[in-house]
Amino acid sequence: MPGDRSVSDVGEFGLIERISRIVGPTQAIVGIGDDVAVLNAAGPEYQLATADMLVDGVHFHMGSVDAFELGRRSIAVNLSDVAAAGGLPTFALTSIALPPDTPLAFVERLYTGMKNEASRFGVEIVGGNITGTPGPLCIDIAMLGRVPKSEVVLRSGAEIGDVLVVTGVLGGAAAKRLQSERARLLSGIEPSSHASKLIVPDARVHAGRTFAESHFAHAMIDISDGLAGDLGHLARSSGVGAVIREESIPISIGARQAAPELGVTPLDLALFGGEDYELLVAMPEASLEPCRRALGPIPAYEVGTVLAEDQGILLELTGGKRTMLRQGAWEHF
Amino acid sequence: MPGDRSVSDVGEFGLIERISRIVGPTQAIVGIGDDVAVLNAAGPEYQLATADMLVDGVHFHMGSVDAFELGRRSIAVNLSDVAAAGGLPTFALTSIALPPDTPLAFVERLYTGMKNEASRFGVEIVGGNITGTPGPLCIDIAMLGRVPKSEVVLRSGAEIGDVLVVTGVLGGAAAKRLQSERARLLSGIEPSSHASKLIVPDARVHAGRTFAESHFAHAMIDISDGLAGDLGHLARSSGVGAVIREESIPISIGARQAAPELGVTPLDLALFGGEDYELLVAMPEASLEPCRRALGPIPAYEVGTVLAEDQGILLELTGGKRTMLRQGAWEHF
Repeated sequence: MPGDRSVSDVGEFGLIERISRIVGPTQAIVGIGDDVAVLNAAGPEYQLATADMLVDGVHFHMGSVDAFELGRRSIAVNLSDVAAAGGLPTFALTSIALPPDTPLAFVERLYTGMKNEASRFGVEIVGGNITGTPGPLCIDIAMLGRVPKSEVVLRSGAEIGDVLVVTGVLGGAAAKRLQSERARLLSGIEPSSHASKLIVPDARVHAGRTFAESHFAHAMIDISDGLAGDLGHLARSSGVGAVIREESIPISIGARQAAPELGVTPLDLALFGGEDYELLVAMPEASLEPCRRALGPIPAYEVGTVLAEDQGILLELTGGKRTMLRQGAWEHF
Repeated sequence: MPGDRSVSDVGEFGLIERISRIVGPTQAIVGIGDDVAVLNAAGPEYQLATADMLVDGVHFHMGSVDAFELGRRSIAVNLSDVAAAGGLPTFALTSIALPPDTPLAFVERLYTGMKNEASRFGVEIVGGNITGTPGPLCIDIAMLGRVPKSEVVLRSGAEIGDVLVVTGVLGGAAAKRLQSERARLLSGIEPSSHASKLIVPDARVHAGRTFAESHFAHAMIDISDGLAGDLGHLARSSGVGAVIREESIPISIGARQAAPELGVTPLDLALFGGEDYELLVAMPEASLEPCRRALGPIPAYEVGTVLAEDQGILLELTGGKRTMLRQGAWEHF
């Protein structure tokens, strides 16, 4: 019976689709279902707003995580969403549900990490909410930002013939996460016996602003679900297809080294691993060189080309053979 | 040892104080520790931002709650925070952590309730986040709003001699909550056997805007912690004292009727019960009549007077005797 189905039966993206239908269309330039809401406002700028929730036992393990790093990460993933629209992050609201026995020192280090990461980008923590919970610690951060209306970059602007560019090497975050999970399993059931390293992405705020200011980028997204999944999001939003070339994908050294013991290929880690939080950008080929100059030390790797929608989303293997690119992405159920 | 203390040792307000110190001062007109952040922006308006988290087992009981009402309430409590600054709510981000076995129908009703309540006030749900959780369902809503800079009303503007006004009867929400808790206890350990009625406050957005536009209000706060607690917040922020007159406090009929069986006085429910979400306003006495005309059908009960800080926060009992007003408020630990 449909009425008996649970959220795990439809999955994260199925649920988002249903919620989008309930919430309905809005006046927002970009609304629910995207990583960041783009909101019309009086004046020359759009307002940006995004939120991200982290739960103990799902996104981190309290027994083994460094609270300072957790605080930094919880801010950084939101910075990345604002960066992907070409925006400047401004303010954060931090909500947290705390088990009553949470050490005070943990909470203080958590907020110190949040403050530290926010300050790096001039973001101010201006509010939020604290509550108790009988369950796991849960952090939800809402971040605001702004972007000149003439500069905003959405997922949806990619054009046929555009080159696809990523701002850094991929697969490293997934390799670290899998290694950490593996070590937790091998060391027994007590997570605290193993100090897992939480990955704090270096949010590409400066790169995002550079793409936006220069008007080079037609479309942009941050790679949180993996290159394959986020390319899929960008392509579907833009009504295009795409091809990614295996030999051009910049795979991190960490992913290459860790892949054998993890029983996966480095390419799998880069395509499907997620959490790299690099930007994926579609832009005219002629813009690539001026864009690289503007980016300075930040890399811009050309990984593929935008195709017509009916060509689908493809992976060109070394040697030239093209296959459909599997649309895997991490789900949280 | 201080390092061994847990969050329950310092409580909600102790924790907020510590976090405020870590987060430090900001450029915000009003930042962390208040119910709503007032943010400077280009143009004639301030931006408002607030967030509120609701956790199953703390703020509601999933087994007995109507998901539609829960959705409405989760939006309404945030509307109230925006209203208390005299603001107009605009956009909401809804984050939710869902146990995998959450019925799909529950989530759909929840969002339908959110959408319903948001639409009543022209608020659009433009984003948020969905994740799984091994623990209880957890909802965090961030709400944005705006207010003309010349009209914003803070907690901190009360002046000696101001009258204190509330926009509705008090104690009813607490009476309902206590009755519901009592029935849950009496019916045994299975909460789902008892259909508890969740209280959906009628956020005073129109009243808040009326006070703001008219420039009548010197200070304003919504009564979520109870009249005593929120008067304390307003008085401390304003650097004043206050007296509340017992005979003037508008107590709801529900609170009067329920008090005997709950073993409390109606006055206790009104002063300490909380969750009424009426506005408490400090304004010049001469403004009271024009204010009442502007409010139309919304009541404005005069409950007390602002005093000098060194007089403290007092309750004037029927008969004229004055006592210190206990600063009780609901804590969530």
